[in-house]
Amino acid sequence: MSYLNQGGFVMKIITQSLASDSAAYLQGYLRQGDSATYPAMIIVPGGSYTHIPEQQAEDLALAWSARGYQAFFLRYSFVAEKKPLLPAPVVELAQSVAVIRQNAAAWQIDADQINVAGFSVGGHIVALFNDLWHDAHINQLAGTRPEQVKPHAVILGYPVISPKLGFPTDQEMLASWTDDPNSIAADEHVNDRNVPTFIWVTAADPLVPVQNAMSYAQASLAHHVDTDLHVFHHGSHGLALANHVTAWKPGTSLPHVAHWLDLAEEWLNELD
Amino acid sequence: MSYLNQGGFVMKIITQSLASDSAAYLQGYLRQGDSATYPAMIIVPGGSYTHIPEQQAEDLALAWSARGYQAFFLRYSFVAEKKPLLPAPVVELAQSVAVIRQNAAAWQIDADQINVAGFSVGGHIVALFNDLWHDAHINQLAGTRPEQVKPHAVILGYPVISPKLGFPTDQEMLASWTDDPNSIAADEHVNDRNVPTFIWVTAADPLVPVQNAMSYAQASLAHHVDTDLHVFHHGSHGLALANHVTAWKPGTSLPHVAHWLDLAEEWLNELD
Repeated sequence: MSYLNQGGFVMKIITQSLASDSAAYLQGYLRQGDSATYPAMIIVPGGSYTHIPEQQAEDLALAWSARGYQAFFLRYSFVAEKKPLLPAPVVELAQSVAVIRQNAAAWQIDADQINVAGFSVGGHIVALFNDLWHDAHINQLAGTRPEQVKPHAVILGYPVISPKLGFPTDQEMLASWTDDPNSIAADEHVNDRNVPTFIWVTAADPLVPVQNAMSYAQASLAHHVDTDLHVFHHGSHGLALANHVTAWKPGTSLPHVAHWLDLAEEWLNELD
Repeated sequence: MSYLNQGGFVMKIITQSLASDSAAYLQGYLRQGDSATYPAMIIVPGGSYTHIPEQQAEDLALAWSARGYQAFFLRYSFVAEKKPLLPAPVVELAQSVAVIRQNAAAWQIDADQINVAGFSVGGHIVALFNDLWHDAHINQLAGTRPEQVKPHAVILGYPVISPKLGFPTDQEMLASWTDDPNSIAADEHVNDRNVPTFIWVTAADPLVPVQNAMSYAQASLAHHVDTDLHVFHHGSHGLALANHVTAWKPGTSLPHVAHWLDLAEEWLNELD
């Protein structure tokens, strides 16, 4: 797979495990063959904490690669592997940022520009990580220090935010996530140390109510976090790029919604 | 002023008064010379209820004209002319929709596609009108029936929504607007008959807090009104087109924010 038909400019695909006691790993799509450094984007896909859609995760990573990012997706732990699951995926995301920062020079990455984009329950992981990257317990579990795991900015697509806001409705599912629902209500843990946050969602989302995104955005605005929010009227849950690349049924390629990617890239370019 | 260098395709600029007892009028920028019918857009400009910026109002109208709309701006009554002022501008907006609908054939307008876009306090007028277009008292004051004044859709740019949300802070100013602040809290009067609503604002707005737009959007979503919401992180109050045409000081031409016009047009095209 090459961007330019020249020797050396060949994408390198890597797999990086995170800890000996988990199935989590990072898959990276690295530009190489020049001397440039690039910002990084870690995709944290959805999948109801039971699986991840790997093809969609790769498509999201490649979309950022095409915009000049060193792109990754995180295969985090699932409920079948740890019960209750949380905060394991949050810890694995912290480890992901740390390992990318540690390898920044080798992977041609600007260590100050490590961004994270989460979708659906991946948005839940990222929203919690945004609230907790400096948390002592999370860093203890990750074996990291806050300065190693601080992200530059986060993007949340149709995020799950709080079990109090309509998802999940299944109490057994919630019990597999946590035995302390308050601890995973991401809107209730937003604080002044949250990093710039871009949120997009569809008002019509039939699975995860739009109130999840709205409530997190309200908390971000209240804490004067740099916030960009885009609520598109139409569209189902799980739209990913909302274009033909990731369309998975009729009505999931929506040009209006697909603007989120341009808007997010532009917003990132306006941050310090 | 002509769109095409052909006989007949010459914009006609009209001025339409609304009632013998007010200074309010509509200024229209009408495409003509063909047999097409067009949707309409009524711009309701800002100006703190003391004046309107006529150049900016015209620039906003021309932007919609260029996108194939029969465009108008409303010069509504000001506090120096009526005290307390409200609901006079809301009544004048109702009269505006009625007069456009009445003249739809002559003005080459689709009577089912009369849209309204309000900015700052103009957004307050439009938000209240969206809540109250079917209200008996408003229609009595306007001399209209609800079916004559129902808009197709509304656009709110950096709207003032409620005096409880940080603007105005001056109690004398508020007293010049109304002697019943609850009656002008537009977020508290949203109902199931509100029409599709597009809202945009900047999170950093130093004059009218972003909470105004957020609160109206929350109410619209709660009532299952078709809602599109765009909160852009940077930018001051009163950006209008947010491009060089309406820039009024350094930092008021902002390409990220200027997307609101494309997004709004696209959203309108997706409505029934």
